[in-house]
Amino acid sequence: MKKLSLTLMALLATTFSFAQQALFGGASIVSPEIHPDNTVTFRVVAPKAVKVQVTGDFLPTQKQTVKFGDNVMEMDMPGVGDLTEKDGVWEYTTPQPVAPEFYTYHFLIDGQKMIDLNNVYVNRDVSTLSSILLIGGGRSDLYKVNAVPHGTVAKRWYTQAGMTRRLSVYTPAGYENSNKRYPVFYLLHGMGGDEEAWLTQGRTAQILDNLIAQGKAEPMIVVMTNGNISQEAAPGETSDGFVPPSMNLPKTMEGSFESSFMDVVKFIDANYRTIAKKQSRAIAGLSMGGFHSKFISLNNPDSFGYVGLFSAALGVTDPTVSPIYMNEDAKLKTQFDKKPNLYWIGIGKTDFLIQANNAYRQKLDQLGYKYQYMETDGGHIWRNWRIYLTEFTPLLFK
Amino acid sequence: MKKLSLTLMALLATTFSFAQQALFGGASIVSPEIHPDNTVTFRVVAPKAVKVQVTGDFLPTQKQTVKFGDNVMEMDMPGVGDLTEKDGVWEYTTPQPVAPEFYTYHFLIDGQKMIDLNNVYVNRDVSTLSSILLIGGGRSDLYKVNAVPHGTVAKRWYTQAGMTRRLSVYTPAGYENSNKRYPVFYLLHGMGGDEEAWLTQGRTAQILDNLIAQGKAEPMIVVMTNGNISQEAAPGETSDGFVPPSMNLPKTMEGSFESSFMDVVKFIDANYRTIAKKQSRAIAGLSMGGFHSKFISLNNPDSFGYVGLFSAALGVTDPTVSPIYMNEDAKLKTQFDKKPNLYWIGIGKTDFLIQANNAYRQKLDQLGYKYQYMETDGGHIWRNWRIYLTEFTPLLFK
Repeated sequence: MKKLSLTLMALLATTFSFAQQALFGGASIVSPEIHPDNTVTFRVVAPKAVKVQVTGDFLPTQKQTVKFGDNVMEMDMPGVGDLTEKDGVWEYTTPQPVAPEFYTYHFLIDGQKMIDLNNVYVNRDVSTLSSILLIGGGRSDLYKVNAVPHGTVAKRWYTQAGMTRRLSVYTPAGYENSNKRYPVFYLLHGMGGDEEAWLTQGRTAQILDNLIAQGKAEPMIVVMTNGNISQEAAPGETSDGFVPPSMNLPKTMEGSFESSFMDVVKFIDANYRTIAKKQSRAIAGLSMGGFHSKFISLNNPDSFGYVGLFSAALGVTDPTVSPIYMNEDAKLKTQFDKKPNLYWIGIGKTDFLIQANNAYRQKLDQLGYKYQYMETDGGHIWRNWRIYLTEFTPLLFK
Repeated sequence: MKKLSLTLMALLATTFSFAQQALFGGASIVSPEIHPDNTVTFRVVAPKAVKVQVTGDFLPTQKQTVKFGDNVMEMDMPGVGDLTEKDGVWEYTTPQPVAPEFYTYHFLIDGQKMIDLNNVYVNRDVSTLSSILLIGGGRSDLYKVNAVPHGTVAKRWYTQAGMTRRLSVYTPAGYENSNKRYPVFYLLHGMGGDEEAWLTQGRTAQILDNLIAQGKAEPMIVVMTNGNISQEAAPGETSDGFVPPSMNLPKTMEGSFESSFMDVVKFIDANYRTIAKKQSRAIAGLSMGGFHSKFISLNNPDSFGYVGLFSAALGVTDPTVSPIYMNEDAKLKTQFDKKPNLYWIGIGKTDFLIQANNAYRQKLDQLGYKYQYMETDGGHIWRNWRIYLTEFTPLLFK
C-alpha cells in the first residue's frame, strides 16, 4: 500500500497545483470565513506589508470626490476596513453580521489592490478581477445553486450585422425533453460588460432556476447578447487572443446594436422552440442595456410585449446620431398605443442616473403611458440589477 | 456636449470597476507583454517587495526534491526567473523567445505566490488560480480562437448513479442547423479536475473548432463529464456554495464512476443527434481520466470503438476494490478480440507514470493487442494533454 499511496500522492501533487502550499504541509488560511452569525473574517498573508485593508460592497459606502478631467463628482464608493496583523497573517472581522447578498471585494496591500488568493472564486468585470462572497438568506438564496432542476447554459455563435458574434442562452430545465414552445427574455448588459456579465455578476442562471422551481416565474429562454457591436465576443473569447480588455468600445450607443438587434431575434426564433410573438417576448437591460432596451422596443413596437429598464442610461445620446434615436415621441405614442403587456422601470435612490430616469417617468406620466416602477436603496450597482431581475422576471408571460 | 460626456464618464466609471487606477489617470502597466520576437516581459508593481520572481511552465523545468510524508521524490518543477525593480515596478524579460504554447504562471512576491493582477485571464485548477499566457504559432494556433465556424459549448445537468450532475457538451458548428447525426467523443479529466478542466486548460472547444475547420477532424460531439462521482459539479457550481475546493474527493478511483458511466452515454444518446454505436464512440482521458477510460472501455467492450489513454494513471488501484477492476486479462482479451478501431496511448518521457505505462504496453505487446503510441518530452502536464488531444482527435471516426 505504501507504493500505491505514494503514486496517488504524486498524482495529486502534479495534477493539482504542485506549488500549492497546503499540499506540502505549509499552513493554509481560510478566507473569507463566514461565521454562523454571518459575520465574516478576511485573512491574507502579507508579512512585510505596513497597511492592509479590505474593500468591497459588503461595507457601507462612503462619499468620495472623483475627478473626470476638469469635472468633479461626488460618488458612492465602497467602504474600507483595516486588517490587523499577527505573525504575518492579517485579519479583519466585520463588526456586524453581513446582510445576505452576493458581494465582490479586494484587498489593498500597502495601497495595491489585489484579489483574495485564498478564495478561488473570482468574477471578471471588464478589466478587473474581484473576489466573491455570497451570504445566503432571503433574496440571496435565489443567487445560490440550490437542489432544484437546473437549466442549460450555452455559449453560442450567430451572425448579427454580418459579423460572427457570441451570445449566452439559458434554456429552462425540461426544455430538451419536451416539444413545448417557450417565451424568450432578451437580457442586456451595461457599458463595458459582455455576454457573460449577466451570468457571472447577475447570477441569471441561478435566479431563473430558483424562480421557476418555486413556481414564481414561467419557464422561459433567456438570451444574453454582447451589446458592444464592434466586439465579436467577451475578452479572451475572440480572435484577438488574450489582450487586455479595452475600455474603448466603439459603437456601443450609436444605433448599430439596436438597429441590428432583430438579427438576434430571428436567430433565436429559428434555432429554439420559441413562441415567436410579441406577448411572449421580453427585453430588459441594465444601464446601457436599459438604454438599448428602450430603443429596441421603441423601434420594434410589435416585437416586445415586456420591457424592463434597469438603471437605464437615459438622456445620454444625441438623438441625431442615428435614426434609431429620432422621433422618440411619435414612436413612444405608437409603442404605448399598442399597449405593451408591461413597461417596467427600476433605479436606485442614489444612482447618478435617477434624475434622467425621473425626467423620463415624468414624460410617461404626462402622456398617460403606464409603467411599473421600483426604487431601491443604493446606486448604479449589481446588487440592484439582481434585485430588478428577481422582481421583473416573475411578471413576465403571465 | 460637456454634460453628455460627463454622464458617459460616470457611466463608465461606475459600470467599470471604479477603483481601477487606469480610469482615474493612475499609471497602468502591461503584463504580460509579448514582443514581436516572442520574448515576453512580465511586470508587477510591488514597491515594498525585497524579492520578486516569476514562475511558470514557460521556463525550463528544474529538478526539485519533494517530500510526501516519509517518502522523497525528485520531481520536475517549473523554473523561476528573477525580476528587477525600477521605481517600484518589477520587470522580467525572457532571455529567449518563448516557444508557441498555452502557459500558466505566477509571481512570487517575497515568496508569496500570486497571480498577475494586470492580466485578467486566469484559469482555475482545483484550488489554484493561475495567470494565462498564450504564444501563437505552430500547434499553439490550434489553441486560439480563430476566425472559423465555432461550435456551441453547453453546461448541462443530467442524472448519473441517481445523482444530479453537471457536464459540458461541445457540439460542432452546424449541429443545430442540420438533421445529421454525429459521433461522440467522451473526454475525461484528471484527479482534482472537473467538467470545466478540458475547456479551460485543455482548450478543447478551440482545438475542435480549428481541427474541424481545417478538415483534419470529423465534426463530432465532445462530452466532458465530472469524474468525481461524489461531486455534483465543479466548485462554485454546486449547492455547497463557494466553499474552498476540496482536495479530498472520495470515490474517484473505486469503480463508482466507471460502473455508472453508461448513464452518461444513455443521456447523451437520448438528448443529442448521436450515432449510437461503437464505431462512432470514443473515450479518452488524462491521468485519472485515462484510468477511467481504460476501465470503462474494458467493461463495455461493445460501446467504445476508440480509446485514448493520456498519461494514464495505471497501476494505482487494488483490483479487489471493485468488480470493475477485476479479471482484467479476460476482459482485455474480449475487448481486443472485438477489435477496437483504435487504442491509443500517449505519455511524456519524464512522467512519473511512464514505468506503469511501459509495463502496460509490454503486456499489450506480449498479448499481441495493437495500439498506437506517442511519447513526448516533459512530464505530467497540460501541455502534453493538449498535444495528445490534437493528435488523437484527427484519428477518430474515419
